[in-house]
Amino acid sequence: MLDKASLKKIRRIMGKEAMLNTPADVALYGYDATPALDGVAPEAVVFPQRAEQVQSLVQLANQENFAVVPRGAGTGLTGGARPIHGGVVLSTQAMNQILRLDTDNFQVVVQPGVVTGDLQTRVAREGLFYPTDPQSLAVCTIGGNLAENAGGPRAVKYGVTRQQVLALQVVLPQGQLVRMGARTLKTVSGYDLVSLLVGSEGTLGVITEATLRLLPAPACRSTLLMVFDRVDQAAAAVAKTFRAGVWPSAIEFMDRHCIRCIEEHEPAGLPIDAAAVLIVEVDGSRPEVTSAAERVQQVMSEMGARSVQVAQSEAEAEQLWRARRSLSPAVAKIAPLKINEDIVVPLSTLPGVIDAIHALAARQKIKCVCFGHVGDGNLHVNFLADPSSQEEVARAEHAARELFALTVSVGGSITGEHGVGTTKLAYLGMEHAPEALAAMAAIKLALDPRGIMNPGKVLPDELLAKERGSGPAH
Amino acid sequence: MLDKASLKKIRRIMGKEAMLNTPADVALYGYDATPALDGVAPEAVVFPQRAEQVQSLVQLANQENFAVVPRGAGTGLTGGARPIHGGVVLSTQAMNQILRLDTDNFQVVVQPGVVTGDLQTRVAREGLFYPTDPQSLAVCTIGGNLAENAGGPRAVKYGVTRQQVLALQVVLPQGQLVRMGARTLKTVSGYDLVSLLVGSEGTLGVITEATLRLLPAPACRSTLLMVFDRVDQAAAAVAKTFRAGVWPSAIEFMDRHCIRCIEEHEPAGLPIDAAAVLIVEVDGSRPEVTSAAERVQQVMSEMGARSVQVAQSEAEAEQLWRARRSLSPAVAKIAPLKINEDIVVPLSTLPGVIDAIHALAARQKIKCVCFGHVGDGNLHVNFLADPSSQEEVARAEHAARELFALTVSVGGSITGEHGVGTTKLAYLGMEHAPEALAAMAAIKLALDPRGIMNPGKVLPDELLAKERGSGPAH
Repeated sequence: MLDKASLKKIRRIMGKEAMLNTPADVALYGYDATPALDGVAPEAVVFPQRAEQVQSLVQLANQENFAVVPRGAGTGLTGGARPIHGGVVLSTQAMNQILRLDTDNFQVVVQPGVVTGDLQTRVAREGLFYPTDPQSLAVCTIGGNLAENAGGPRAVKYGVTRQQVLALQVVLPQGQLVRMGARTLKTVSGYDLVSLLVGSEGTLGVITEATLRLLPAPACRSTLLMVFDRVDQAAAAVAKTFRAGVWPSAIEFMDRHCIRCIEEHEPAGLPIDAAAVLIVEVDGSRPEVTSAAERVQQVMSEMGARSVQVAQSEAEAEQLWRARRSLSPAVAKIAPLKINEDIVVPLSTLPGVIDAIHALAARQKIKCVCFGHVGDGNLHVNFLADPSSQEEVARAEHAARELFALTVSVGGSITGEHGVGTTKLAYLGMEHAPEALAAMAAIKLALDPRGIMNPGKVLPDELLAKERGSGPAH
Repeated sequence: MLDKASLKKIRRIMGKEAMLNTPADVALYGYDATPALDGVAPEAVVFPQRAEQVQSLVQLANQENFAVVPRGAGTGLTGGARPIHGGVVLSTQAMNQILRLDTDNFQVVVQPGVVTGDLQTRVAREGLFYPTDPQSLAVCTIGGNLAENAGGPRAVKYGVTRQQVLALQVVLPQGQLVRMGARTLKTVSGYDLVSLLVGSEGTLGVITEATLRLLPAPACRSTLLMVFDRVDQAAAAVAKTFRAGVWPSAIEFMDRHCIRCIEEHEPAGLPIDAAAVLIVEVDGSRPEVTSAAERVQQVMSEMGARSVQVAQSEAEAEQLWRARRSLSPAVAKIAPLKINEDIVVPLSTLPGVIDAIHALAARQKIKCVCFGHVGDGNLHVNFLADPSSQEEVARAEHAARELFALTVSVGGSITGEHGVGTTKLAYLGMEHAPEALAAMAAIKLALDPRGIMNPGKVLPDELLAKERGSGPAH
């Protein structure tokens, strides 16, 4: 527990207006967007404006042994921003400036609180393009995207957040303010600390500034909707598209339940009798897009698509994407509890995996809705349950465990986008050998010996305690 | 020193034929391709065929405290494979199998000793493409590419080696055999150990297997040669090309000295009166390549190119690339000692940086030859000296230090491809703050507390000793 003296020190670092600590004020910061997790209110919430304030806070946390939990917009889906060991939530909300837009070098320097969608809009005005597009881009922040290594539909062509990062300024867990990476497209000067920090979910430091790479905006885009009567045909068409030499900027999949859900809640004219649809986007120069769209149509027809429709205008394309984006909220409407997993599997296993998912859901008598970024094998599998029935929730959780076993058995990963947070801690051992987890724990302990940064996330406390006990033989 | 008993144990692990330890046999393994470094013969050289042998060796090294120095083809340029602290050189030469080519998932599983060029040839037969193309690709191995995070001309479009890696099997420094990553295009399940291992120059483990991503082979390529009368025009044309919405698969730069060097030693018809040339390659579908090549020609003419020539055949394109590849050996012919640096800088700084390089070389009265992958800002700067003159060598080294200071002052990195090895140890502190280097050291010590893996590389021994002394407060 933070005592009055500590709170006073924190307030001195942050300034009067930049700290909250009344129960009413801090309550909201006990949640993120993960369904069905109880709130765990922090002892204080701070809103630093400068890296030096973050540094002072983390130094104080080391002296007085309290947890620091970084928070972007709170859109995380695995409980990563919940202060489960108390302490201080560090909101990046007041560090929301685009510091430098360097059009000559295709780079932008941002503070962590910049909203992803705002960044995209800003750079688009210069004919540039920041590709990473998590579904929450209208509200989520670059800092959160970095912490979680966020993906999105366009990751299939442009990579995830990690691939966009050139350099970081970070406050490390012991309070060192450091820069890592360079203002260049590549560097091999020492260990790749940037890649380690990105995706570490706030457990290895607080990112206070990021230099991101930009691309020239594609001159042209085309969006296509393919309707299938069989799920396996849709799934198999994904790999075939790549084989045809087309690398789309998005390949999204929605199953029958998704289509119905959208049409019931926010009608978009999707065929409710279809087994599945694919939405494919290709981008690039005009001749490239024209040729790619033709090849996609041809492949999809060959693979048995019942219909192939090319959006004839920006508005038509936007309607398709709006339908896709409305899906997550629409699914939430039909079930009070949505256990939302985000497995990722090799492309060729998709048809079998989707089949097996429906079979395991049926065995557990649990409703299951599947959609996702199938172009990179990333399936969002939603098990729907009534939270008032403990027994039903238990069956849904059992289904999730079976899903992870299935995923790992085909060489996949239990999370492609959402991270581990707290909700996937129990499943990590299904994917990683004890020795690999021990190596991760050794890195965490080396950088954060006191366990200050976002404790209880990514790696189980028991694992860290064990690794601490065995310690390196220095 | 390894005693007889230890050597016997090593021989038992490897098998009789797979260990060398006579002075004549091991002498060669004291060198890599770095100019002017003395040989440091290892005490033994081993040629394991299986990961389990690597594991047993590393376990023994931990028990008996000897160094293990992994070695690919020995083409490294910063002394990374030299066993400067003695011990055993672990050659991956006998682990040279392509284990699985998975065309459905655009993946290949390889052992570390597979030659990069051989892999490219093999996957090309299936219409697939492994983009990373270090200049030594005819002999260098994937294991070495992974250890150094190798680049090459195509990195500007396709990224460096790290971007091609999906999963690794690694023997960690304490002898744990682990898998990391997944057979998928993305994963956020725990810390990114894959990115940490790639580029760690053999100091954090031995990579015994890698799963690499492949791409559909581009249907078409076009290679263009642009001749400039002014270096600054050529340098400025690079950023302009991207601004025109073209992202070439290579943009190579050669200065006047390079051109003369090639024409003297392996004539390729380059104009010896030019100040600089750019070789640009664009790839993709036919319509895309046609349109991109047209835009490149237009930009280059606008930027003042004296002539723009499009290769009219595969043979003509190959002649240009052969000239580019012959450059390094040709430069070596004109000077007994070539200090070969590989800085990387932001694109917009290229014209000024190239100017400043020639100025600093002139101040030191040292011949200087510049070429490189300017599309990603990567300049190979060669200072030429007569090794029989200590004083001239000292001036060349002084020029190198000034070069690094210049590089860091514009936000660049002292090495874009070659790594730190031993030759850049003294300059690391110019780029990285002590706290960042201490973080790297903490990671090294956490994973390799006994300093078994390739000691003396990437991080200075003194730094590790200091960090070991301060150790984390477990």
